[in-house]
Parts: sequence; structure tokens; C-alpha cells
Amino acid sequence: MNYGIIKRTVGWILLFEATFFLVPVFTAVIYREKEVYDFLIALFSCVALGSVLLIGKPKNTSIYAKEGFVIVALCWITLSLFGALPLRLSQTYPTYVDALFEIVSGFTTTGACVLSGEQVQALPRCILMWRSFTHWIGGMGVLVFIMVFLPLCGGGNNINIMRAESPGPTVNKLVPKMRSTAKILYLIYGALTLLQFVLLIFDMPVFDAINISFATAGTGGFSVRADGCAGYSAYSQIVITVFMILFSVNFASYYFIICGKFKEAFNLEIRVFLGIVVTAITLITVNLCLSNAYAYTTGEAIRYSAFSVASLISTTGFSTENFDLWPSFSKTILVMIMFVGACAGSTGGGLKVSRIIVLFKGATRETRRMLHPKQIKKITIDKRAVDDETVRNINGFFIAYLLIFILSLLIVSLDGQSTTTNFTAITATINNIGPGLDAVGPAGNFAMFSWWSKVVLIFDMLIGRLEVFPILVLFMPKTWKK
Amino acid sequence: MNYGIIKRTVGWILLFEATFFLVPVFTAVIYREKEVYDFLIALFSCVALGSVLLIGKPKNTSIYAKEGFVIVALCWITLSLFGALPLRLSQTYPTYVDALFEIVSGFTTTGACVLSGEQVQALPRCILMWRSFTHWIGGMGVLVFIMVFLPLCGGGNNINIMRAESPGPTVNKLVPKMRSTAKILYLIYGALTLLQFVLLIFDMPVFDAINISFATAGTGGFSVRADGCAGYSAYSQIVITVFMILFSVNFASYYFIICGKFKEAFNLEIRVFLGIVVTAITLITVNLCLSNAYAYTTGEAIRYSAFSVASLISTTGFSTENFDLWPSFSKTILVMIMFVGACAGSTGGGLKVSRIIVLFKGATRETRRMLHPKQIKKITIDKRAVDDETVRNINGFFIAYLLIFILSLLIVSLDGQSTTTNFTAITATINNIGPGLDAVGPAGNFAMFSWWSKVVLIFDMLIGRLEVFPILVLFMPKTWKK
Repeated sequence: MNYGIIKRTVGWILLFEATFFLVPVFTAVIYREKEVYDFLIALFSCVALGSVLLIGKPKNTSIYAKEGFVIVALCWITLSLFGALPLRLSQTYPTYVDALFEIVSGFTTTGACVLSGEQVQALPRCILMWRSFTHWIGGMGVLVFIMVFLPLCGGGNNINIMRAESPGPTVNKLVPKMRSTAKILYLIYGALTLLQFVLLIFDMPVFDAINISFATAGTGGFSVRADGCAGYSAYSQIVITVFMILFSVNFASYYFIICGKFKEAFNLEIRVFLGIVVTAITLITVNLCLSNAYAYTTGEAIRYSAFSVASLISTTGFSTENFDLWPSFSKTILVMIMFVGACAGSTGGGLKVSRIIVLFKGATRETRRMLHPKQIKKITIDKRAVDDETVRNINGFFIAYLLIFILSLLIVSLDGQSTTTNFTAITATINNIGPGLDAVGPAGNFAMFSWWSKVVLIFDMLIGRLEVFPILVLFMPKTWKK
Repeated sequence: MNYGIIKRTVGWILLFEATFFLVPVFTAVIYREKEVYDFLIALFSCVALGSVLLIGKPKNTSIYAKEGFVIVALCWITLSLFGALPLRLSQTYPTYVDALFEIVSGFTTTGACVLSGEQVQALPRCILMWRSFTHWIGGMGVLVFIMVFLPLCGGGNNINIMRAESPGPTVNKLVPKMRSTAKILYLIYGALTLLQFVLLIFDMPVFDAINISFATAGTGGFSVRADGCAGYSAYSQIVITVFMILFSVNFASYYFIICGKFKEAFNLEIRVFLGIVVTAITLITVNLCLSNAYAYTTGEAIRYSAFSVASLISTTGFSTENFDLWPSFSKTILVMIMFVGACAGSTGGGLKVSRIIVLFKGATRETRRMLHPKQIKKITIDKRAVDDETVRNINGFFIAYLLIFILSLLIVSLDGQSTTTNFTAITATINNIGPGLDAVGPAGNFAMFSWWSKVVLIFDMLIGRLEVFPILVLFMPKTWKK
């Protein structure tokens, strides 16, 4: 284990976090909020510790797979520990664990909240801005962001960092250099965010438009109003719906579209993803229209179901209607797409569509092999064979994910909440969504959980965002050997 | 596809079912119940159709993997379709789907019921006996049973039938000949059943003792009294608890114990299984004792938690206490062990402990490979390497199982029951347990589901008992090609 390089990267992350704090500081100055001091304290702590950690240059700058995972895991933990400081210092959050929960929820783009809607609306604007900004930074990846500005650690082995931080089973290398790939991705990300902001600004206050754009881009889900997105006009809700879908698509596809490679852009994963979205919206709309209990017009039913489906499959977690009150069939579909999640290489969470495809094809292959035991067929995606190592890795990922899910469920159930609350609380955090059903539904929040349950859920959010292995690797004694 | 041999085996199964019907006929004669005629009609229908199907000998008697799966699936479906006849003819079940649900629940050793406790207690004794007897026959396998008496189809390839019908990822060949293995297994099975009967007979009516012994042996769970097993003495409950555990253990282990091979008898699977049982009982006992809401003495808490854990992990489904009223933590543990299930090669259902071990070891291996990508290690169990094909097969099995689970959940949720009811109804049927939580908890039953949900649950019970692939193979067009 190369401790020198880890120390150095954590040092850099703290300095970058200090610059991130300038966003809420600037907001506080505009709105003349006294919480500016809390952010400044946090900012200077980051600068101080960061500078100390950057003293001395490591002899060896190579980052292997192991270092990649540990760096990513430790950076995210450090980022969250310091990011939570101003929330606690400002006394707006009752305990440090609550503040940490909220900020991990921000960076991991979960959007799960320990405050009620009214409490959120009453938050100082600089804190609201900081919450939304963590979504934007966390969505595409902090270390990928740093990579854009810094030739991190010599350069060559940055793929190991990108692999550990980017969602999905494989990393698209758009151009030969990893650093240029990171730049292209952030350019597309920034451009799309800006476009959404421009489209929203006609219809809502600038402050809301910035926050909602940040939260949509990162597929986060923190809102700034007590009623979430229910208060915005139909136009704004449609814009948000479209952009939630756009941000759940592999960003490589946008690059391919720009390059004119349309066939590569609309690959199997995107086609399956859009297929699931359209099917889910249709089924829920029909279900809502046929149930007499809801006084929706057909247009409203389509709009609400499209918003909820886009919100949950993209793992954003915005809400307009309280889908916890919808019929069981609709709720079951919503919980299912929570697990599916977005496309690999997007800012969305969940299992990722490409993994689901591989798992599904693997199961079909095994059934077929029952008939012809000696036949060995490779799994193919877009006519390219998926190597056995990737298939095995995805299977291992899925089982580890389930085991963590189950263990979390067991601990959280000690709190004595309902089965549905516990189950969907884990679902909503490990898939980085935000709201679940019952007590953690769109009308509820995560405040009632005990501190130990909150720690478990914090852990689950990190597990979900960093895709299981970086966090698990931290717990293996072998990792820390020289 | 060798149609001749399939026709012949289905013919034989009908003749054997006719002899099975002698058990309830005999019971009806003893208790002078008029339902004897319903059973006789079913008996003669079986003889008639069976004889027709047995006309003409197939030229080719070889059974390959494909034929093995199709034979097993079709035999179980035929067995259930005819087994349900007397239940409907006697007017004790409102529709044929209800009767089919009940008898599939019997043969698959699920024990889920469409009648209330009072309705069950009021059933004619011949029907009660038939329900329990289907558990006993279904537990060890109908085709394995036939194999004991008949050199099925020439003989050599019987392993393919045994493989398709016996629970678990691998089949233990105790002795070189498959038929002798089947005989040994049924001998042990019969001896254990008899032992339980003898131990129970001191403490309850003979009729109850026979039924409970059949239902325990098959890890079924149908009871004959309105209050399940709550009315029996502590002594009887303890006997039942012990035997539920004994019937969840790989029967090969008993053979090894008889042969004096103790090391092979207490293999990893059994050690893990017993470890889970003891841990679950301890945690639930502590949880029950610490919750003030339950007026249990420590002794009662141990007895009730041991009974429930044994009942659910063995996938029997008997109940003494209504565990649906226990605290969330206990309920979460119970739902978890429902998925774990018994050991491979026992009569119990669920995923099977050996599969869980392989899945778990696979996930650990992948995490370790993150640190050392080039290291390739085999998964080992009891110091023997598990070949990659088995690992892949188990992964495929697990994913197929989950996909069926999810699809079933979606359809059943159209009925509008609560999320917990739907989720645990599928859990309880696909794992062949019986009771779930909420409306399908120990105090409830499956009557309120619509006919289409019942068909889905029937399908799930068969999927669970025959371990996914035989039923899936029926749906593949390739299976039916010449």
C-alpha cells in the first residue's frame, strides 16, 4: 500500500473542498446570512489540514487498483466529514450525525433528508445552495473533477481512480488520455446543466432554478421548497422530467452523438433503459386512470407518473405527487425501477441497466445450458462478447450488494419502524434515490431513525455511490499490508 | 425430444397416484366419510388415463438432461391436476383453482392454505389425511419414490430425473447405482418419520400424530387443528422443533453417520446451517425478552423462537405463536431465514444453505480480486474446489429466481393487498414455506387473492420445489423441437 500517495490525494481533496465552500460563502454574502462564518470556519479547517497533508512529496506516484479504491473511499469520507461541519456549526441540524447524513446524502446524490419539508424551506439560502452544490460535484465524481485541473499523481494510472469512482461496470475511455476524457465529460455535464437552468429560469426564481438544476444534474433530489417540486408549473415539471432522463443516460452517448456516431450512441443499454421508462410510465398511468380513488385527468396521470418514474429510475428522488398513496401495483413498479437505476456512465445510481442486462442474459444462458450442457456460449452486448471476468465480477457485485442490503435491514429493523419503511429506507439510500415508502415516503423524512441506523444508512449511501467495492476494500486487513 | 418416454412416465405417475389415493380412501372408510366416493372417482380417472398412456412401448428409452427436466415438470403438474380433483368434487373448496392451490401447496411441501384455521379443522378426515400425505410424498420426490419400485425407463440415465427433482445444486450419489441411492434415502426418510410418530403418539391423538409426522417429514406445514400447533403440549412442540431441524439436514449425512464417516457427515453446509439456526434463535429470544410488550417467560421465549426459526428455515411453516405480532427485528430475521432455507438434499425448500455459501464465497473472491486483479482462486467447500460451472449455474439460478420473484410480485400486487402481504406471500410460496406476514401471516390465509394471483402463486410453488429450471425449460421453444 502506497501511503504517501493516499496522504497527498486526501490533501488535495481538502484544498478543493475549500474552493467548493466559496459557492455557499458567496451565496451567504448575497443574502447577508450570518451562516457565512460557519462556512468560513470549515473552509479554513480544510485549507489548514490540506496544507499539512501536502507537505513532502511521495517517492512513488504509481496508483494500482488497490490504491485507486482506497483513495476514492477515503476522499469521499473526508469530503463528507468536513462538508458536514457548517451544517452542524450553524445549529440548523440537531446533531453531527444528522449533518453528516445530510451531506453524505448530498455528495452521493441520494437526496434523503433528515428535515421535514417546512424545515427545509426555512433553511438559510447558503445551506440550501451548499446541499444542491454537493449533488452537482458528487454526481460526476469529485476525483474526476480534480483530474480535470490537476495531473493527479503523475498521470498514467488515473484510470484506476476513474474506475473506482465512476458508476457502472466498465469505464468508457472516449479518448486515449484519461484526463481528456474527464474534461469532455465535465464539459457535457456543465453544458446540460446550463441548458436546464436557462429553460427553468423563465418559470421560477433564479435561486430555485440554480438549485433544481444542480440537483437534477447530479440526479440528487434535494429541493428548496416544502412541497418539493409540486409547486412548480406543469412546464417546469416537464422540463425537470426530461432532464432527469437525460442525466440518467451514459454521457459517452452524448459524445458519440456530437461525433456523429449515432449507432454507438443508441446502444443496447440505452434502448433497454428507454424501454423500461416507457413501459413503467404506461403501466402506472393505466393503473392510476383505472383506480377511481384518484381524481387525476389523463393528462395529469401521465405527467405525474412520468415525473415519478423519471425521478426514481434516474435515482433523483424529486417528487410532485405523494406516490406512497398510489395503488400497490404502481408502488411495486416504482420500487422495482428503484433497483434498476440509471445507465452506467451517467450520474444516476441503482444497479445500472447494463448490469441488469448481463445478469438477465447470464440467467437465460444457464437455463439454455440445462438443455445442452456441453454448449458454451458467450454473453454478448451490442454484438460484442462480454468476457467471463466481467460477468463474474457483476455477479459478485450483485451478491455483495444484496448481503449489505440484508445486513443493513437487520440493524435498521432494531428501530422498530414498519417493514415497508425499513425495506424502502435501505432501497432509497443504497440506490442513492432519496424517498422510499411509508414513513420515508415523499411526505416523510429520515429524522425518526436512531443515530446507529443513520450511520448504517450513511454507509449504504457511500456503498451505493462508490459501487460497493471501494468501501468493502477498506475493511479487508490485506489492504493495509505494506 | 423423446416424446415416447415422457408419455410413458406420465402414465406411470398416474398409476402411482391411484395407489396414493388408497391412503385417503382407507381413512374415509375408517371414519365412514362420504367423501370416499370423490377419492374413488379421482382414483379411477388416474387408472384410466394412466393405462391409456402406457399403451405402446417407446423405442428409445434414454433420458437426457432435457427429457429429465420435462418429465419432472410434467409429472408434477399432472400429479397436482388430478390430486386436486377430490378436493373440488367434495365441495369443500369453493373453486377448482383453490383446490389446485391447496394440493400444489401439499405436493411442493409449501403448506400455504386457502382456508381459515376453523375451516381446516372442519375438513373431513380423509381430506386432511390426503393433504398431509401429499407433503410426505412431495418432500422426498415422487419420481424418486417411483424409482424405488420401478427400473424407470431402462435405468442408466435416472440421474437426470433425480437431478431435476432433488433439491440442491448437486446430487449425492451415495452408492454407484442411482436406484439403490433412492432406496437408501427413502429408508432413512421412512425411519425418521416413524420415529417422530412414535414420539408424538404418547401426547396427541393417533390421527394428529400421523398427520403432523407426514407434514414435518416433508417440511410441509399443513396442520389439522384451527390453532396450528399452538394447542399441543410443550413436549410435542419440542419434538416437532427437533424433527423440523432433522428433516432440513442433507439425508446423505445420516447415511454417512450410519457408515461411521462422521467427518463427512458434519460438512460445512450443516455446520453453517446449525450456526444460522442457533444465532437466529438467540437473537429472537433476546429481542422478545427485551421487548416489554410480550408476557413470555424466558423459557417460553426460547421455545417459541426455536419453534418459529426451525419452522421457517426448514420451510415447514407450522406455527405456535403468531410471529406477525413480534417486533420488527425478529420479523426481519424470520424473513431472512425464509430465503436461506434448508440444506441441499433434504426435504426443505428455500435457496439452500450450500447455494448461499457459494454465492457468499463468490462475492468475497471478487472483492479480493479487486486488490489483486490477476490472482485467480477457486472457491472451495470442505477443501474441495467448486468448479466454475457450478458457480455460474448457482449465479444463474439465483438471478432467475429473483426475476421470477419480481415478476410474480408485480402481478400479485394488482390485487391491491399491502406491500408486506404481497412480498411475503411470494416469499412463502417460492420458498415452499407456507405462512408469511400481515394478511398471509400465521393467523391469516391465501383465500383473499384473486384467481390469477393464485395461479401465479401455484406457479411459484412449483418453481420453488423443482428449483426453477425444470419449469422454465417448459417455456423454451427449443425444448419442444424434435
